[in-house]
Amino acid sequence: MSTPRASLDFFHRPSSVAVVGASDDTEKIGGRPLRYMREFGFAGRVVPVNPRRDTVQGLPAVPSLQDSPVVPDVALIAVPGAAAVEAVATAADMGVPGCVVMSSGFAETGTAEGERLQAELLGHARRSGMRIVGPNSQGLATFSSGAVLGFSTLFTEEPPEDGPVGIVSQSGALASVPYGILRRRGIGVRYVHGTGNDADVSAAELAAAAIDDPELKLLLLYLENVADPESLIALGEKSRRNDTPVVALVGGRSAGGSRAAASHTGALATERRVLDAFFERVGIWQVHSVRELVAASELYLRDWRPRGNRLAVVSNSGAVCVLAADAAEDEGLPLAELAPDTVEGLKRELPAFAATGNPVDVTAALLTDSTIFGRVLPILGADPNVDACLLAIPVAGRGYDVEQFASDAAAFAASGTPLVLAVPQPNVAEPFVRTGLPVFEEESGAVAALGQYLAHRRRMARADGLPRPAVGPREPLHPRQLNEADSLAALAELGVPVVAHEFVPDPAQVAGAFTRLGVPSVVVKGSTSETGHKSELGLVQLRRSSPAEARAAAEEIAASAERHGVALDGFLVAPMVAGLHEVLIGASLDPVFGPVMVVGAGGVYVEAMSDTRVLLAPCTPEEVHEAIAQLRMAPVLAGLRGQPAADVDAWVKAVVRASEVLADAASPIAGFDANPVMLLRHGAAAVDAVVLRR
Amino acid sequence: MSTPRASLDFFHRPSSVAVVGASDDTEKIGGRPLRYMREFGFAGRVVPVNPRRDTVQGLPAVPSLQDSPVVPDVALIAVPGAAAVEAVATAADMGVPGCVVMSSGFAETGTAEGERLQAELLGHARRSGMRIVGPNSQGLATFSSGAVLGFSTLFTEEPPEDGPVGIVSQSGALASVPYGILRRRGIGVRYVHGTGNDADVSAAELAAAAIDDPELKLLLLYLENVADPESLIALGEKSRRNDTPVVALVGGRSAGGSRAAASHTGALATERRVLDAFFERVGIWQVHSVRELVAASELYLRDWRPRGNRLAVVSNSGAVCVLAADAAEDEGLPLAELAPDTVEGLKRELPAFAATGNPVDVTAALLTDSTIFGRVLPILGADPNVDACLLAIPVAGRGYDVEQFASDAAAFAASGTPLVLAVPQPNVAEPFVRTGLPVFEEESGAVAALGQYLAHRRRMARADGLPRPAVGPREPLHPRQLNEADSLAALAELGVPVVAHEFVPDPAQVAGAFTRLGVPSVVVKGSTSETGHKSELGLVQLRRSSPAEARAAAEEIAASAERHGVALDGFLVAPMVAGLHEVLIGASLDPVFGPVMVVGAGGVYVEAMSDTRVLLAPCTPEEVHEAIAQLRMAPVLAGLRGQPAADVDAWVKAVVRASEVLADAASPIAGFDANPVMLLRHGAAAVDAVVLRR
Repeated sequence: MSTPRASLDFFHRPSSVAVVGASDDTEKIGGRPLRYMREFGFAGRVVPVNPRRDTVQGLPAVPSLQDSPVVPDVALIAVPGAAAVEAVATAADMGVPGCVVMSSGFAETGTAEGERLQAELLGHARRSGMRIVGPNSQGLATFSSGAVLGFSTLFTEEPPEDGPVGIVSQSGALASVPYGILRRRGIGVRYVHGTGNDADVSAAELAAAAIDDPELKLLLLYLENVADPESLIALGEKSRRNDTPVVALVGGRSAGGSRAAASHTGALATERRVLDAFFERVGIWQVHSVRELVAASELYLRDWRPRGNRLAVVSNSGAVCVLAADAAEDEGLPLAELAPDTVEGLKRELPAFAATGNPVDVTAALLTDSTIFGRVLPILGADPNVDACLLAIPVAGRGYDVEQFASDAAAFAASGTPLVLAVPQPNVAEPFVRTGLPVFEEESGAVAALGQYLAHRRRMARADGLPRPAVGPREPLHPRQLNEADSLAALAELGVPVVAHEFVPDPAQVAGAFTRLGVPSVVVKGSTSETGHKSELGLVQLRRSSPAEARAAAEEIAASAERHGVALDGFLVAPMVAGLHEVLIGASLDPVFGPVMVVGAGGVYVEAMSDTRVLLAPCTPEEVHEAIAQLRMAPVLAGLRGQPAADVDAWVKAVVRASEVLADAASPIAGFDANPVMLLRHGAAAVDAVVLRR
Repeated sequence: MSTPRASLDFFHRPSSVAVVGASDDTEKIGGRPLRYMREFGFAGRVVPVNPRRDTVQGLPAVPSLQDSPVVPDVALIAVPGAAAVEAVATAADMGVPGCVVMSSGFAETGTAEGERLQAELLGHARRSGMRIVGPNSQGLATFSSGAVLGFSTLFTEEPPEDGPVGIVSQSGALASVPYGILRRRGIGVRYVHGTGNDADVSAAELAAAAIDDPELKLLLLYLENVADPESLIALGEKSRRNDTPVVALVGGRSAGGSRAAASHTGALATERRVLDAFFERVGIWQVHSVRELVAASELYLRDWRPRGNRLAVVSNSGAVCVLAADAAEDEGLPLAELAPDTVEGLKRELPAFAATGNPVDVTAALLTDSTIFGRVLPILGADPNVDACLLAIPVAGRGYDVEQFASDAAAFAASGTPLVLAVPQPNVAEPFVRTGLPVFEEESGAVAALGQYLAHRRRMARADGLPRPAVGPREPLHPRQLNEADSLAALAELGVPVVAHEFVPDPAQVAGAFTRLGVPSVVVKGSTSETGHKSELGLVQLRRSSPAEARAAAEEIAASAERHGVALDGFLVAPMVAGLHEVLIGASLDPVFGPVMVVGAGGVYVEAMSDTRVLLAPCTPEEVHEAIAQLRMAPVLAGLRGQPAADVDAWVKAVVRASEVLADAASPIAGFDANPVMLLRHGAAAVDAVVLRR
């Protein structure tokens, strides 16, 4: 990653653009940008570069880039392979601020030659400070300035219109597809960027530049790798500061998808749930499909300030009321408990047989009473228990005053309460769509989009209170597994309470350790850094109740270790601790996102019955409490069926302290696995641990 | 439930229809059916009944139903309240086979008067054998015969066309909405039935009649209650026999939805996961939203015979290949491992830089090579490892030979391999839609629909091998909780192995029981039928290791019982059994679906950490094995980290035997809860149980 310049604004609002490989053919890669800039109102200077023509598409051309009468803000490169590298070198020599390299034949080919050419490109950027988008880029399009520095065919298929949405994607297709869907829904899109191989400028860095635009209301991001976490952090920070939500789709979640991504733009280097934790931390909403990427766009474009997520449902169909309530539960949106005044108000406005609870079924009375929504919605909006509304009209048409319904809905939504519509009939939906309201074909889609929108706003607000994740690559520097005793000592230093223990070099001294511990029963373990599977190898002996038994256990362990060829460096003797629950605390260094903590249910079946959550370091007590509350084991921690409550605070405190140590880039700890940690009524104690030191 | 007649065919293909309350106004409920039957080609006789007119919509009218010149096959009732009851009485007297009562004001009002009127209707049906649809029905529409016995406004909004889909719904809106969506997608719909209150004929019974139609290829069902499981079983059987899949949406899954349904058509009387188990058993696919109800329709209309679910993906975008692979994993569709011949074949057909694994990225070569899909798809289709294909074209348009792509895709799909399309641009999608292929906006929707279709076909095939569920209401007849000893005895009789034990009436005899058991350590329990919470009340004492300790335990228990006011009828003494795992076996009587079995992880935290599966009785060993394999605890059963494998067969055998006893309607057992059942290396033993006897 090169050091980002203060801004990449020249890519968005260049005063001049040179097109290297400019073509008279408006269907060619070198011809389209010229045509697009002309058609979409680019007011800057355009310099076609073409050694074989005096003019290109009516503009005076120059034979080579260095003949350009101005140093362009951007050189757009549409010539292949070696010629592209040469043009980039020339641009760097001339002091051009930015290049967009549309040419392919670089690292995406998977060949050494392609890698070499791409490294050359980057070399020219590094030596001159010039920034490069691409290579293998579909190009950048900015419709507020008309600077279309790319060749997407979709701009002729779906005519652009400037608007409040930005799309930044590593893939050209994944820039074009959401662009097309949004345009067909009548939404204006300002930025449509397909970055390609991201040799220099990453998609995340470009997105962080685009989001500086105060008129942007929504940024959609498609990534296939996350090589640039610093820019993603900056993007998250700006998203919250500018109140411009970012919705991200990262391809390659699955094994098959990751393999496909590896052959496409390079696979994700990071574990998926670390990425999930990262996006949650920085306030970016992550989706899993193109459908979800664009589903809630209309909601983000409104200036709503939702307070909570309690939903009121209004429909002229009882069945749709039922299905909307089901969908609300699926999305985690509670149905609002209506205030008594609200119920009274609804009773006054609705026929006697209508349902005046929530959902509100206005019944077929809608056919004869066109103002019913206009009267019912404000009553719900005035209820302090209602945070958002769904209006569902499964059947209407001739005989219904749909224009009235739409203007009543628009007036209500303008008053500040988020409102989504479920209207399957296109002719009934049309007046609502015309008002800019979010209209869906049916209730489950409407509620899902609303759920995403409300949860995203909540995530953004929450992210403001969280520490900056300690991302960044940290070389493991030959991590080394510590033995039992050193692991416990290192853990204690990290702030994780560990069981009382004695470490002795040979079996004869185990009896004395038993006596010194003064407990009725001990566990004896062979101490070694050579294996993590002590139980299976017979290196752990539980419940030894006398000095002699303890010593005998140590001798058995020594024999077993010899049988398995494991070198022991001593014996650990510790009291048998019967906790209320066995939990675990883990930490590791992610290659992209740095130190990562794991909390979860502990015990021997951890991997099989996986009940864990991942957090980025450093983490706050609130975050750790929330993560623990999401575990399947959470309900038992408070004490069930006569059992006492466990000291969850002690667990949380240990995780937070360890996360703070790990977050320090100078920390010598490369990771640890404390399992089980016994949760007690008061306190907690790790009884087994492996620590990795760098 | 009345005894169903052999067929409800008169509702679908009546030779004559009387409309009681016929209106000249074609927008009125009594006017629309006349107009619709005329417009949609009903060839039978229509007799308008109207006391104030000689002709209605040009047809000669009669003043009252008994004046009809023929006994009509169906009397369609469009007059309100008491007049409707009177018309139904007349129809019954005349020997009319069927009535459709569109009038409202019956049980759906929630009033005693409404209930009374509905009971009267039913009385007329019962005494005469006449069958009634409704009341409060939107009516029935059959477009093969033109018999539109209903008033849905959607038939004017979205013109009908006869076709291979049937829709049967308790809700009129939920018949109209899927009808409209399918019609806008160009799919013909034959049946559009909105049944209403289901006083006599249930939606399920009507669906089971409609599915007899050999031309039907798909039946969509919407329910809010499942009062008629026998008809649902018949529907499932016919669905499999006729090879006509049924997709069902049952509203009211959530607490809020269930409350809304209660006020709408009467809530579901059954636990939701029992319903899930039922649909799985009979081969009906259950969905959770209108979107899912209609999403896969085009796939069902093809005559594919899928062998498996291994997917091949073809696209001209690398990013879409990545996302399609992710979506495949989400849907449980494995990516096909291509055979070496296939890879060789692809290499011959594709440019050198294209990805010839699966997903297959044909790259931008598509622009210059229009026949590439026509060459690549058959290569994949010939691979025995490929069961289905996705073809995704995120970007095309001018310059692409889309007609060629569509005809190649159609030819491939006709060869028998299921094929779905992901094509966002409407103009690019249009030629594919024209061929009748299933086209989706993006890959996740396409893969989800394919996943549903393939899983449904598999479910239907599997259902053929399963026993008929022992549904039917079975009065609990004052269920009585048995005490500890009787529970264990009853359980053993059901075929569930129980722990060895002694039952003695007083503490003094507990010492002798200890000696007779001859084990090192016992558990002592107070035996009572008064509580299920023995541990919390101190009625269970573990690990007593001598006759004296056992007796003392019994005395403590007696004291504790007295303190808590629990009457003991004796003491149970049993060996301490340390199983490999604690599991549970449960059984209960569902009010609708009869005997239901539960298998799952056992122990004290069963409710909090719920890890259970529900099965209908009787169940097969294969079914129980599959249910256990789906538990979260499943991976540990085979033995992990040096632990031996548990005897899962013993568990399965106990469940199957108990399920067979429970399935017998004469069984005196109303349910039981065996928890924990200790799974051993060889065998299993219930150590704690509560049995309910009728």
